[in-house]
Amino acid sequence: MLEAVVYNREESRLELLDQTLLPVETRTVFCKTEQETAKAIVDMQVRGAPAIGVAAAYGIVLGLNNPQNHGKPFKAAFAEICDLLASTRPTAVNLFWAIDRMKKALSGCSDFAAAAATALTEADAIKAEDIEMCRSIGRFGASLLKNGETWLTHCNAGALATAGYGTALGVFRAAREQGKKFKVFVDETRPLLQGARLTAWEMVQEKIDATLICDNMAGGLIRDGKVQGVVVGADRITAHGFVANKIGTYPLAVLAKYNGVPFYVAAPDSTFDMTIKYGEEIKIEERDHDEVRYIGGQQVAPKEIKVYNPAFDVTPPELITAIITNKGIIRPIYRDTIPQFIGADTKEAGA
Amino acid sequence: MLEAVVYNREESRLELLDQTLLPVETRTVFCKTEQETAKAIVDMQVRGAPAIGVAAAYGIVLGLNNPQNHGKPFKAAFAEICDLLASTRPTAVNLFWAIDRMKKALSGCSDFAAAAATALTEADAIKAEDIEMCRSIGRFGASLLKNGETWLTHCNAGALATAGYGTALGVFRAAREQGKKFKVFVDETRPLLQGARLTAWEMVQEKIDATLICDNMAGGLIRDGKVQGVVVGADRITAHGFVANKIGTYPLAVLAKYNGVPFYVAAPDSTFDMTIKYGEEIKIEERDHDEVRYIGGQQVAPKEIKVYNPAFDVTPPELITAIITNKGIIRPIYRDTIPQFIGADTKEAGA
Repeated sequence: MLEAVVYNREESRLELLDQTLLPVETRTVFCKTEQETAKAIVDMQVRGAPAIGVAAAYGIVLGLNNPQNHGKPFKAAFAEICDLLASTRPTAVNLFWAIDRMKKALSGCSDFAAAAATALTEADAIKAEDIEMCRSIGRFGASLLKNGETWLTHCNAGALATAGYGTALGVFRAAREQGKKFKVFVDETRPLLQGARLTAWEMVQEKIDATLICDNMAGGLIRDGKVQGVVVGADRITAHGFVANKIGTYPLAVLAKYNGVPFYVAAPDSTFDMTIKYGEEIKIEERDHDEVRYIGGQQVAPKEIKVYNPAFDVTPPELITAIITNKGIIRPIYRDTIPQFIGADTKEAGA
Repeated sequence: MLEAVVYNREESRLELLDQTLLPVETRTVFCKTEQETAKAIVDMQVRGAPAIGVAAAYGIVLGLNNPQNHGKPFKAAFAEICDLLASTRPTAVNLFWAIDRMKKALSGCSDFAAAAATALTEADAIKAEDIEMCRSIGRFGASLLKNGETWLTHCNAGALATAGYGTALGVFRAAREQGKKFKVFVDETRPLLQGARLTAWEMVQEKIDATLICDNMAGGLIRDGKVQGVVVGADRITAHGFVANKIGTYPLAVLAKYNGVPFYVAAPDSTFDMTIKYGEEIKIEERDHDEVRYIGGQQVAPKEIKVYNPAFDVTPPELITAIITNKGIIRPIYRDTIPQFIGADTKEAGA
């Protein structure tokens, strides 16, 4: 199985597939300390909310094994390790969730050796549960994909973004395991091209029949009847079913609706934020303007031109055919259907 | 006025603004012969159907003034010059139209000196008429733009693509001449980024308040009420109002319709092909797959990934609020309204 975050027990090190170099180069980053792990997260060598959470959990293991920390009092050293890892990506929900979970698991520990062993068990559990969650999403999603269909996906909700297997791409992995025949169109996903760089790479690795397009080509394909389903991941879903996801998701949902093609969102229950109802309550991060003016260091626009570069958009529930979760397929999407699947205990994780 | 195709009488040379280097570098290409003109067209240093037509017309002037041709019989030399220029871009309608018009104007000529003088007068007329046509489109279009509005455009239907002034961008130039206040969003327009490279550059030159976005960001802006109108150019329009234009036009039309925002097409009457009715009759050119896999020489996707790269899409008439032509504003768009504006004499030019 394609895994971007692997803990090597023999070498006591974390091995990350460097996502900044894909698809041109496949190189592994080796982290022996919590500092090296934190740097890999900051530098986005590991990315995707669940993958970052798993990497941080193993980063705590490395910190507890790090001899440089063993001269300090245990509680102080542990807090320092957690603070360092938590400071890497300020808006990554899964990062804080994973660190909190590690803190709870280690609350009874008072020496480094015992804590490191407990931490490794807990980090392994976080990773295994994430993969199992993706496999559940994949199975539910694959039941919606009919033999011979062609589906479209956007950005990278794949093995590289999770502990493995992926959410939206997990649907394709499960469909293949079920012996279904299908094709996939992959949006390149400007500005950072996660579709071209990462999803296309995953599809090539898995030998799934995939075709790369520019984002503005999806509409024509949908109109021409060449797409029978669209599936994307999600960054956050409100209690009423508004979905924040990578910029470019909303236009796909409108184009699918206008042409009578089902539009699916694939996401674990931890993505739901039951404390908010409407899309307007989600703050949209605006990113560096040079992500649009430059591509891979190459200038593609006048330096003086103003730029708008939102990282996400919000898709309203009336455009979503179903949300595929690890707990089942929610459809139709409205305020009464979501709580039937998503329990109150997910409020915290999604907050 | 911003002009990409200028004939310098004193130096007897054609001066082209090199569009392959924009926006990083502003450099002029000097053509002294018909061969240099043909090369500039092939290399896309001059691009945009009307601009190519004007460049070819001046290329004929240069050919007739070229001493290397003066040893040959006039008719043979003239035919050779026309054939060379016609061979540069096999699908450019305006190129053949301009060369045919030059042939008609010179049908009575039999010596190089008189022919060159007649050719220069005719080339100047083609250029002046194209600019006047754009100005008409601009005036009609500007009447639809209300003070304080923000409009969105795609690709480059600007001064760089025409003899000057532009079609879709002519609407903005005319609105500014009328003293209107407005803002513009510019789609970068993957894969060749004509929006980022050319339209953004034109807007900076003209000091029009413009903001560059990636193509997949337009939907969110329209949904959020930040766009009050969309205006694009056209490559070909059928008798029933199906519009073939740069890939990414159709999704904008759906997003505008879904959100109640007017969607306009700006094009001269020569763009109408009254010999065909439906979108299916328009053959869509598929371009080199490496335009998607590479950006400015930089690899952005696995070499092994399949690619689909259509140059155009087709927007059906029910999504178009109006077509802004040099002969007036056609609305609503259906088979009965178009012939009222577009005469039978345009059939040939658009064929």
